[in-house]
Amino acid sequence: MLRDCELSVTAFDWVPGFAQGLVRDLRVRWALEEAGLPYEVDLLAQGTQGDAPNLARQPFGQVPSLKMGDGSMFESGAIVWRIAQESDVLLPPDPAGRDAALSWLFAALNTIEPPISMLAQLDFFSTDTEAAGRLRPEIVAAIRLRLSALERELAGRDWLADRFTVGDLMMGAVLRMVDRDTLGDFPATAAYVDRCIDRPAFRKALAGQLQPFAQNEARYASMLQ
Amino acid sequence: MLRDCELSVTAFDWVPGFAQGLVRDLRVRWALEEAGLPYEVDLLAQGTQGDAPNLARQPFGQVPSLKMGDGSMFESGAIVWRIAQESDVLLPPDPAGRDAALSWLFAALNTIEPPISMLAQLDFFSTDTEAAGRLRPEIVAAIRLRLSALERELAGRDWLADRFTVGDLMMGAVLRMVDRDTLGDFPATAAYVDRCIDRPAFRKALAGQLQPFAQNEARYASMLQ
Repeated sequence: MLRDCELSVTAFDWVPGFAQGLVRDLRVRWALEEAGLPYEVDLLAQGTQGDAPNLARQPFGQVPSLKMGDGSMFESGAIVWRIAQESDVLLPPDPAGRDAALSWLFAALNTIEPPISMLAQLDFFSTDTEAAGRLRPEIVAAIRLRLSALERELAGRDWLADRFTVGDLMMGAVLRMVDRDTLGDFPATAAYVDRCIDRPAFRKALAGQLQPFAQNEARYASMLQ
Repeated sequence: MLRDCELSVTAFDWVPGFAQGLVRDLRVRWALEEAGLPYEVDLLAQGTQGDAPNLARQPFGQVPSLKMGDGSMFESGAIVWRIAQESDVLLPPDPAGRDAALSWLFAALNTIEPPISMLAQLDFFSTDTEAAGRLRPEIVAAIRLRLSALERELAGRDWLADRFTVGDLMMGAVLRMVDRDTLGDFPATAAYVDRCIDRPAFRKALAGQLQPFAQNEARYASMLQ
């Protein structure tokens, strides 16, 4: 049982502004907060994520990973699903409801997030901004196509299934990466995102991620000059 | 128990050549074959995937979905994990081994697959081929960075963990989308992919997906002229 383990999640001590509030440890913190599981945070100094200690916990040198007593897991989707097994806030008791939550968890990560990640690649990471700008409209169209389907599902309901589940947690976390202008064309989806981020567990998780960034901003800013 | 249900997976009756052998129902068929679960295939006529009957099973108008008696699931990752719960071929009995398989399943879909999907977008779907060509090198670099990490993990071992699991099934399915030239620079990973696709369950699943494509090729080719 996770409740009997010491839990600690890895996170960065600082990231650039565009990534603040979006680093994937947020998803794990949010799930832990919803489940009411106490946890520690192992802060990684920015730039050390590819070093041996983190690689031993996370083969790709990313965050997050979760230490659970003697065990360990990586990939926020995997960790969040593992936490949900032990939380009646994150999963309903009936098998059909659990299957639906699992489908929506993967839909968030494997259907909705990929075009959103592509747009982030074009907007924030591409070195050929002119070519990236030319491809932008077709990626935005792919995002909008998927949001249209979600909008249909969310019309007239609060959550993707009958109640909040881990599927909504992940969908909400992914949809936060969509800009508000785009979301504005999908009112049921926009209201849904607001409902997700208004949850006390989300707000606590977000504050937890942001806190060290503010503390370390001045130090990293001077290093990057 | 899935063994007590009638199972049927949706698949297309035909797709264009570049997608043949890569449509996501392959992942579900493969898992069903590994688990030794008998199943039917519901073939969708190409072009009807966005119609009401399929949307009722798959909110984004995609394949696959799995009907399980009275229940239903969508998203290949979710379905494959669900099947794995009832198969000792796909998951070991110990909790730590199951957690590791879950981490690798998500790593395949949320860390390895995204840059591979981005490259597919550039190569097969972009309408601005000149801009797409200019962005190609940075996406290939992102793929190679992740393959380097995998290569380190796979050095000297047959599978990602101590034995084949559902994590290898998904990683193998995703890595099949990488071209052989690129894979050639990562010999342990290339050998791993060969080990995955040499499994009888994989070969049976692949033959099952391809069979209707060959049957329907002439009919669709004449429609597309």
